[in-house]
Amino acid sequence: MKINCDMGESFGLWKMGNDEQVMPYLDMANIACGMHASDPTVMLNTVRLAKQYQVSVGAHPGYADLQGFGRRDIAMSSDTLSALFIYQVGALAAICHSESVVLSYVKPHGALYNTMMKSDEVFTTLVKAMSKAAPSLPLVVMAVPNYEKYQSLAADHGIQIMFEAFVDRAYDQDGRLVPRTVAGSSYHELSQIRRQARQMIEEKSVTTLDGQVIPIYANTLCIHGDTPLALPTAQLLRNLLALGNSYGVTL
Amino acid sequence: MKINCDMGESFGLWKMGNDEQVMPYLDMANIACGMHASDPTVMLNTVRLAKQYQVSVGAHPGYADLQGFGRRDIAMSSDTLSALFIYQVGALAAICHSESVVLSYVKPHGALYNTMMKSDEVFTTLVKAMSKAAPSLPLVVMAVPNYEKYQSLAADHGIQIMFEAFVDRAYDQDGRLVPRTVAGSSYHELSQIRRQARQMIEEKSVTTLDGQVIPIYANTLCIHGDTPLALPTAQLLRNLLALGNSYGVTL
Amino acid sequence: MKINCDMGESFGLWKMGNDEQVMPYLDMANIACGMHASDPTVMLNTVRLAKQYQVSVGAHPGYADLQGFGRRDIAMSSDTLSALFIYQVGALAAICHSESVVLSYVKPHGALYNTMMKSDEVFTTLVKAMSKAAPSLPLVVMAVPNYEKYQSLAADHGIQIMFEAFVDRAYDQDGRLVPRTVAGSSYHELSQIRRQARQMIEEKSVTTLDGQVIPIYANTLCIHGDTPLALPTAQLLRNLLALGNSYGVTL
Amino acid sequence: MKINCDMGESFGLWKMGNDEQVMPYLDMANIACGMHASDPTVMLNTVRLAKQYQVSVGAHPGYADLQGFGRRDIAMSSDTLSALFIYQVGALAAICHSESVVLSYVKPHGALYNTMMKSDEVFTTLVKAMSKAAPSLPLVVMAVPNYEKYQSLAADHGIQIMFEAFVDRAYDQDGRLVPRTVAGSSYHELSQIRRQARQMIEEKSVTTLDGQVIPIYANTLCIHGDTPLALPTAQLLRNLLALGNSYGVTL
Repeated sequence: MKINCDMGESFGLWKMGNDEQVMPYLDMANIACGMHASDPTVMLNTVRLAKQYQVSVGAHPGYADLQGFGRRDIAMSSDTLSALFIYQVGALAAICHSESVVLSYVKPHGALYNTMMKSDEVFTTLVKAMSKAAPSLPLVVMAVPNYEKYQSLAADHGIQIMFEAFVDRAYDQDGRLVPRTVAGSSYHELSQIRRQARQMIEEKSVTTLDGQVIPIYANTLCIHGDTPLALPTAQLLRNLLALGNSYGVTL
Repeated sequence: MKINCDMGESFGLWKMGNDEQVMPYLDMANIACGMHASDPTVMLNTVRLAKQYQVSVGAHPGYADLQGFGRRDIAMSSDTLSALFIYQVGALAAICHSESVVLSYVKPHGALYNTMMKSDEVFTTLVKAMSKAAPSLPLVVMAVPNYEKYQSLAADHGIQIMFEAFVDRAYDQDGRLVPRTVAGSSYHELSQIRRQARQMIEEKSVTTLDGQVIPIYANTLCIHGDTPLALPTAQLLRNLLALGNSYGVTL
Repeated sequence: MKINCDMGESFGLWKMGNDEQVMPYLDMANIACGMHASDPTVMLNTVRLAKQYQVSVGAHPGYADLQGFGRRDIAMSSDTLSALFIYQVGALAAICHSESVVLSYVKPHGALYNTMMKSDEVFTTLVKAMSKAAPSLPLVVMAVPNYEKYQSLAADHGIQIMFEAFVDRAYDQDGRLVPRTVAGSSYHELSQIRRQARQMIEEKSVTTLDGQVIPIYANTLCIHGDTPLALPTAQLLRNLLALGNSYGVTL
Repeated sequence: MKINCDMGESFGLWKMGNDEQVMPYLDMANIACGMHASDPTVMLNTVRLAKQYQVSVGAHPGYADLQGFGRRDIAMSSDTLSALFIYQVGALAAICHSESVVLSYVKPHGALYNTMMKSDEVFTTLVKAMSKAAPSLPLVVMAVPNYEKYQSLAADHGIQIMFEAFVDRAYDQDGRLVPRTVAGSSYHELSQIRRQARQMIEEKSVTTLDGQVIPIYANTLCIHGDTPLALPTAQLLRNLLALGNSYGVTL
C-alpha cells in the first residue's frame, strides 16, 4: 500500500501546498503538468525534490484551465483530449529524464479524473492514449465497487490500473465520495483519518457516512497536500504502513 | 542538403501556413510546441502529416508568448529557460511516439533562436538542456562565419549541430541576415531565391546585399512556410536537390 | 433592421475573417474582447475600422478559452461569470472611449450565447451584470418564438433586448437553429440566403427545414464573417435594406 | 500623504498577500488587472473589500505574463502597449462601476513601472493612453530627484502625476532604489521602516545607503503587501499619518 499526494501545484510566484515538508513521507508524487497548475520550472523543482527523497514520480495531467485549477469540465473530442493528455505526460517525462528520474505512473487531475470515472468513453480515450504514448505505465483511478470494469477496459489496451482510496473523505453506500457540499464529507480530525486509514489498510473496507461497511480494494492512499492536515496525515500513514519510505520506494 | 520548414503554426481555429501543400516537398518539419504557436491537437495532426510524407520531425520550441508568436524576447534564468525548453521538446516527443514517429532534431524558434545566436550563455543553456533531455538529437542553428564556436560549445556537452541557411533573405557582410526593416532584405521573386539557393548548394557561398561573396556552410535550407512563395520555393528546392523526398528522408 | 457581424476575431499574428472588406456593409460590429479571440491590439484596430465606416460597436464577450474559441461550455458561479462578462465589456468600452467611439450594445459569444438562451439563470446573471455595468446598453439575443420571456427577464433589471435572426442557417419548427451536424443546416448558396433574408425582412417569418412557416421578430440580421459567403451576403443584405450604411447608422 | 499598497494579486485558487488584514489601513489600493496577476473574480472581490473600508481604488496594469508576474520586460510597439494598458484600466473601471466605486488613479506594475521610469518613450505612451482613456485620473510614478521631467511630460498630455516613495527599501545617491541583490537593500526591521517613513513625512528627505541625505517629494508611501511586515508597516504608517483612513479617504 503506497501513499500518493498531488505535488507541484504552485504556479509562477504563487505557492500552493507544502511540498518540502510532505514529500519525505510519500511513496508517489503526482506532479501537475502546466495546464491546470504548475509551470516547467515548478515541475523541474518538484522532480528534484521527489528524487531527493526517492519518491516515485507520476504525471498529473488536467484540463487546460489555470483559473479554474482544472476543476471545471471542458468537453472535447477524443483526439483533442488524447493529444492534451499525451502532451502533458511527455512534458513531465522529459523533465524527469533530464534529472535521471523515471516517470512511473499517470493519475488524471480534477474534472478530468471525475469525468474519466463517469464516462467510459473518456476513460477509454485515456487508456488508448497511454497505450500509444506510455504503454508500460499504470493509470491511477479511484477504488470503486465496480473496479473490475475499469481493469477490463484498461486491459483491452494493455494498461494496468492502480486503485486509490481517500483517507480524509467520507464515502456513500455506492462507494463514491460524498460531495463536499454535504456536512461530514471531509474529515477535519486526525482521529477520523486514522480510523478510516486503518480500516482501509487492515480490513480492506470503509464505513460509509450512513454507517454501512463496504469493501474497498486500494493499492494506494491519497493525501490532499494543500490542507492543514496534510503533514500530520502523511506522517500518520507513514507510521501505519510499516515498510516505509526512508527512502526508496519503487513502483 | 535538406529542406526544412516551420510547420504546425496554427492554433485552435486559427490557421497559419500551408502545411498540407508544402509538407510533401520537405525533408524536415520544425513543429511548434504549444508555447508560441500550435496546441496539442495541431501538433498531433502535423506529426501525422509529416509521417504520411515520411518527413523528419523536429521540435520547434519558443518562448511562451502566443500573442507575440514567440518573437519578443523574455529574459529568464538558465533553470527556467532549460525547463521551458525541455518541456516543449518532451511534449512533442511524446506525441511523435504515440504515432510511432521518432523525434529527430530540435530547432529553437523566433526570439529564442535569435537570442541563442547572440548569447553564448543562452546557447550553452540550450545545449546543456539537450544533453540532459535528448542527447542524441542535433540542434539546428544558423550557418554563420564563426560556426566553429557553436560546434565547439555544443560538443562540450556532446551535442551535434546542423547549420541552416536562408534562401529568401539577404545577408550582410558579417554573414547575418539583413533586418527586415531594410529594403531588399527579403526576396519576393522566385528568380532571386533560385539564384541564392543554387549558390548555397553548388558554391557553398552567398552574395551579400552589398555585393560581396562570402562562404556559407549549411546542412539544410530553410523555407518560410507562411508566405505566398512557400510552395513554389519548396518545389524549386526539391528540384535543385536531386536526391529528394519522394518519400523517405532520414536524418 | 440592422446588419450585425462578428468582427475582430484575429489573435496576435493569426488572422480570421475578412474585416476590412465586410465592415463597410455593416450597421453593427460585434467585437471580440480578448478571452475567446482577439487581443487589445486587434480590438483597437477593429474599433478604428468600425469608426472609419461609422459602424456601431458592440462588445462580444465569451468564455476565456482561446484554444476552443469560446465554443466549449465552462460552468462557473454567477459571481465569476458576472465578473468575467463585465471585465470584457469594460475593456472594450475603454478602447472605444480612447478612440472617441461609444460602445452601443453587448452580444455574448459562442457557448456563452447558447447557454444564455438555454438557462434562465445564466441569462439573468448577464442582464444583472449589464444593469450594474452598462445599464443603458441593449443585449442582443436570438429571435425565438418565446421572445417575450427574454424581454421580461431583461426588463426586470432595466435592460432592453435586441433580437437577431440568422440568414444563412436553417431553422427547426421550434424556431431554433438546426444543428450544424444535420444536412441542410447551413446555406451555401446565395439564393437560399437571399430568399430567407427577404422572408425575414418582408414577411417577418421563416420557413423551417421541414417546410413550415413560423413567425420571427428580429431587429437585426447576423452574418457569419469568417465564411466565403460573408462579403456577398453583406452586400446582398445591404441592398435589401434600403436605408443603408453609407455611412452612419446609429443604434 | 497617502498609503498605497498592491492588492488583488491572487489568481484563481492561488492566494497572494494579506488583503483582508491590510486593507483597513490603506488610503489607496492598487488592484491588479488580470494580465500579470488577478482574474475578474479576484478583481471584483478586491473592489468590494476596498469599498467596505472606503479605500480609493487604482488600476495596477502590467505586462501580460502570469508566470513571470509582470516582472519580465516584454518589448512592444507603442500602439500595442497603449491598447494593453487601456484594456486593463477599462476592465477594472467597469468592475468598479458595477459596484458603484469610482476608479481613482493608475499605477503601472513591475517591469512596466520600471521601464516607464527609464524610457521617456514608454512613459509618454502611457500618459498619452491615459489622456485618451482616462484623462482625469492621476498616474502614480516613483518619486525621483528629476521628478519635474515626469510632471512636464505628463502635463503635455493633460495628465497629473502622483509621486510615491518606498519606506522599506534603501535608496542610492541618485534617488533610485538599491537593487534587491545588494546587501541592505530591503529593510527587515520595523525600526528601520519607521525611521525612513518619519524622515520622508516630516523632513521630505531620505538617507541613502551610503549615508547621504537627499530630498524626496512624495504624495504617497508604498507598502509591499506580500511580505511578513506588510501588516505592521501599514499600522505604523497609519499611526504616523494622523489624518487617517477610518474610513473614507478620497483622492
